[in-house]
Amino acid sequence: MRNIALVIEYDGTDYCGWQIQKFHRLPLEKKAPIRKTVQGTIEKALDKILQEKIRIIASGRTDSGVHARAQVANFKTKSKISPLLLKAALNSILPLDIRIKSALEKDLNFHSRFQAKSKSYRYRISNKKVPSVFTRNYAHFISYALDWKAMRREARALVGDHDFSSFQAKDKRERNSFRRIDELKIFKKDGEILIEIKANGFLYNMARNIVGTLINVGRGRLKKGAVKEILEKKNRKFAGATAPAKGLCLMKVNY
Amino acid sequence: MRNIALVIEYDGTDYCGWQIQKFHRLPLEKKAPIRKTVQGTIEKALDKILQEKIRIIASGRTDSGVHARAQVANFKTKSKISPLLLKAALNSILPLDIRIKSALEKDLNFHSRFQAKSKSYRYRISNKKVPSVFTRNYAHFISYALDWKAMRREARALVGDHDFSSFQAKDKRERNSFRRIDELKIFKKDGEILIEIKANGFLYNMARNIVGTLINVGRGRLKKGAVKEILEKKNRKFAGATAPAKGLCLMKVNY
Repeated sequence: MRNIALVIEYDGTDYCGWQIQKFHRLPLEKKAPIRKTVQGTIEKALDKILQEKIRIIASGRTDSGVHARAQVANFKTKSKISPLLLKAALNSILPLDIRIKSALEKDLNFHSRFQAKSKSYRYRISNKKVPSVFTRNYAHFISYALDWKAMRREARALVGDHDFSSFQAKDKRERNSFRRIDELKIFKKDGEILIEIKANGFLYNMARNIVGTLINVGRGRLKKGAVKEILEKKNRKFAGATAPAKGLCLMKVNY
Repeated sequence: MRNIALVIEYDGTDYCGWQIQKFHRLPLEKKAPIRKTVQGTIEKALDKILQEKIRIIASGRTDSGVHARAQVANFKTKSKISPLLLKAALNSILPLDIRIKSALEKDLNFHSRFQAKSKSYRYRISNKKVPSVFTRNYAHFISYALDWKAMRREARALVGDHDFSSFQAKDKRERNSFRRIDELKIFKKDGEILIEIKANGFLYNMARNIVGTLINVGRGRLKKGAVKEILEKKNRKFAGATAPAKGLCLMKVNY
């Protein structure tokens, strides 16, 4: 057996997220038309190339509409194909909104999810009068001016080890809601407010719920110190709305 | 009568260019399914808002797949609507791949095409091992390394007043093939080679034929001084292939 890791870039616009939907558990008459997923698309391509049933494991799922510059996923195979050839073969049959940036052989014990030390996400807010057509699928457009410096100031309270219950999706709670945010950078560039979050892990919707809360700061709905208070409440209902998926991009997985 | 000018941004990917196709000249049985154009889409929206038959004139046509950051177009109307309201109304009904960046009232004699002093185009070449999914519709991907400094050196021969016959589409010749290139900048940024051309006018396919020729320089197929020779031949057959439309974007129209 060999263990191959892929670094994958994808435009999530036309996908129902990373993870394969479990349609086979449904009775036939309830099966909806199968929705395209990134995982499913890559597995299908791998099956074709390797003539083997392949299951790939990613560093984590991304939701419908979320993008990735460098998702990492690995899979086991009996094939002796060289990683370089595999990469070329995959890129030749995958659709143009998924690209394999690199493929490399790893130790058999490498696991893209369990061994990820941290992940970096970037959220793009287009903050100008008229949205750009070129970022319509990659940035969340907000026409009213946001006070990004206030957002930066408030965001500081989130850095470090915390119980992020307030920023966790209500319906998909994890047993342990402690995570560590290593970096939370906010800056303005070319009419966009960029929010970069590096953490040892993300609860479900955590990045987008943090962004939604910071947007409330930016529009003046939350007073100084409010984000720290929300964090301490450990209750989802005090945080802002989940920001739209299309603004979010998985930038890097650190091992 | 009033004369309104619009500054328009569009993603040309899903459009059959700027100009409305003349289907009404064809007999009914030959009418193909009507293909979407940027002009047609905006005129339809204007008709709806102003309840008037509107004809808009752009600074120039762009081909199928070519983009614009700031196309300029104007039209005459009897309506008394404020330009600001018109802009908001248009953006509320236009598809998201066309945005009106500004609308303003002009003198009745303003003509977006005849009064344009010069236009600036930018061509993006993605020059790395694997294309980015995020620029797949906006940059021409070339995997082999291009010598962009040689391209820049050769491009100098094109700046100034010249007969650009060598770079004009064979089947769409203009009577006067003299044009003046004011600036031709080539630089590398984030894995892309950017070619910016500012000229008092462009012959049909001129920008893309220049780029195609410079690509031949970049891959070492043309020797030093070749571009000057091609220009002097005044014959299309000596220049390179027309570079793909998707890499081209109309950046600015100067009045």
